[in-house]
Amino acid sequence: MTSYTDDSVTVLGLGPMGRALAGAFLNAGLRTTVWNRTPGRDRELVERGAVSVRSAEEAVAASGLTVVCVVNYDASDAILRRDAVTAALNGRTAVSLTADTPGRARDTERWATGHGIWYLDGAIMTPATTIGTADAVVIYSGPEELYREHRPVLNALGGTHTHLGEEIGRAAAYDIALLDIFWTAMAGYAHALAVAKAEGVTARELAPFAKGIGAILPPIFEEVAEEVDTGSFSGEDNPITSATSSMAHVVHTSEAHGIDAGVMRAAEGMARRVIGLGHGTDGFMRVTEMLGRR
Amino acid sequence: MTSYTDDSVTVLGLGPMGRALAGAFLNAGLRTTVWNRTPGRDRELVERGAVSVRSAEEAVAASGLTVVCVVNYDASDAILRRDAVTAALNGRTAVSLTADTPGRARDTERWATGHGIWYLDGAIMTPATTIGTADAVVIYSGPEELYREHRPVLNALGGTHTHLGEEIGRAAAYDIALLDIFWTAMAGYAHALAVAKAEGVTARELAPFAKGIGAILPPIFEEVAEEVDTGSFSGEDNPITSATSSMAHVVHTSEAHGIDAGVMRAAEGMARRVIGLGHGTDGFMRVTEMLGRR
Ligand SMILES: NC(=O)c1ccc[n+]([C@@H]2O[C@H](COP(=O)([O-])OP(=O)(O)OC[C@H]3O[C@@H](n4cnc5c(N)ncnc54)[C@H](OP(=O)(O)O)[C@@H]3O)[C@@H](O)[C@H]2O)c1
Ligand SMILES: NC(=O)c1ccc[n+]([C@@H]2O[C@H](COP(=O)([O-])OP(=O)(O)OC[C@H]3O[C@@H](n4cnc5c(N)ncnc54)[C@H](OP(=O)(O)O)[C@@H]3O)[C@@H](O)[C@H]2O)c1
Repeated sequence: MTSYTDDSVTVLGLGPMGRALAGAFLNAGLRTTVWNRTPGRDRELVERGAVSVRSAEEAVAASGLTVVCVVNYDASDAILRRDAVTAALNGRTAVSLTADTPGRARDTERWATGHGIWYLDGAIMTPATTIGTADAVVIYSGPEELYREHRPVLNALGGTHTHLGEEIGRAAAYDIALLDIFWTAMAGYAHALAVAKAEGVTARELAPFAKGIGAILPPIFEEVAEEVDTGSFSGEDNPITSATSSMAHVVHTSEAHGIDAGVMRAAEGMARRVIGLGHGTDGFMRVTEMLGRR
Repeated sequence: MTSYTDDSVTVLGLGPMGRALAGAFLNAGLRTTVWNRTPGRDRELVERGAVSVRSAEEAVAASGLTVVCVVNYDASDAILRRDAVTAALNGRTAVSLTADTPGRARDTERWATGHGIWYLDGAIMTPATTIGTADAVVIYSGPEELYREHRPVLNALGGTHTHLGEEIGRAAAYDIALLDIFWTAMAGYAHALAVAKAEGVTARELAPFAKGIGAILPPIFEEVAEEVDTGSFSGEDNPITSATSSMAHVVHTSEAHGIDAGVMRAAEGMARRVIGLGHGTDGFMRVTEMLGRR
């Protein structure tokens, strides 16, 4: 492996997450160079010792390892695929902690290989506030040796780091699936609070019970994963017909208050299609099998 | 209070939940009478000492307290609002642990009052398997004195019991909101597993990370409840523009595999409308305020 490493690191992108990453690198005593498209976002980091430079090419030239954390790969490409930056990255490593699709990671690997750039894809699974703490969760995919080489620097971000495999799209695939769970659940919570409010129940009144629902999800996630892999979808404890009945109540109560119920209507639709396909005595997770049919 | 109590209880409805309730009453040593529309569901309960009767009217006549747990209030009405059953319930108490809307609970209270029946509404917030254990969570609304009177028998169900207020619709309102969270989250998980599978990631591989996502939800639920009640929706750590970007990636990856993404499309649509209304720098929970606008 010819990628050169030292005790310095560059961070491109200083949104909430980029700032958290740079802050953790500074706390770990690394020489940290930062750059952001819009100037001024680095003020606090510079006070804490970060090196601020005028251009992305200067930034990547300052370290063997550049961490890119911007909104998506359109933004990341706009930064990295300018000739001056691409040239400066030659022989160095870029770790993308920018969220996007597996396809974009694969495309970036082709581009990186074509320009002599070492490239590792990653995704951060926890909020910006967890960075530098034991709660951070970061997943990676790409060349394992490259991961091992930069792991000491990446460790400064704290928490749990997992290399998922050499196939570059794998971290993004996990990320997409996990973001799917996260944002769907948040959409459910946001909607639930709107319906609760219309019924005279405040968010703070509902929150302790909502937390209870949140707490039962992890064991259920684990239990039904088994069913999904084996293709057995037991509805013995809770048939999908019972689930659709609950879902219809949510839709009805919501819409009776004039509150859009599009998310639950879509969810209920999936469940009703499963019943229509003859699986009414199965459990809700039969939806996974139906969605994946080709 | 003239409702009469003793150490007996009747359970109408022997689906997975009704059977769990009757089982817990039996374990507590209560004289438990059971009835179900479709015969034969009581076999195991009868072996354990339950009294099986031929009709719902005989069943309610056997105890001062009848617990009704069927799929919804259409089913519950079909059982209770037959003249013979209504007459047999006169002067007795019906506790509905059947899930439905707040409106149906209000309608049932009017009916019960008109027929000299004591009525308490309730909702079970945890799976059938939790009944009789410390993990059961049951909420109630209706006359507090009535709740106090029957609490000793209901305690046999184990776990945490909470009386939310005298307004009869309140338990159903909480239930609807909590089912909204639960089933939306489950829809997200089912969909995520379908997308993961298309990317070559098994449910068991994803599950540990999915559990991690589940685990971060309760503290987030608590934190943002504060924001929703006060109407401040900080996007400082994670602006809604960043959320929509993630949501679009989920939709794109899903649909590129031919997997329907209707739930996430609906969720993304809510977030995009918030941005369109000029709140792009706010956090995702601004969605709650938008949904509730009149
Ligand atoms: N925040 C979290 O809690 C969290 C958690 C897990 C993962 N992530 C992921 O981390 C990444 C960064 O998120 P974030 O929270 O920092 O906020 P963000 O709003 O997703 O990203 C903001 C960053 O993207 C840059 N950017 C946007 N468009 C650009 C363009 N066309 N060219 C160059 N730069 C552009 C912004 O620069 P300007 O300042 O110039 O606009 C800023 O640096 C995202 O992929 C996100 O999904 C975030
Ligand atoms: N299972 C759980 O983990 C769980 C958790 C929380 C809350 N709940 C709630 O508990 C209630 C019962 O759920 P469940 O799991 O036992 O299964 P369910 O499938 O929701 O309900 C099955 C019961 O409803 C009866 N039923 C349906 N239509 C009827 C009708 N028209 N007339 C008379 N009876 C009718 C069934 O009788 P037959 O046998 O004759 O069809 C059976 O007794 C539901 O409101 C559910 O939302 C369940």
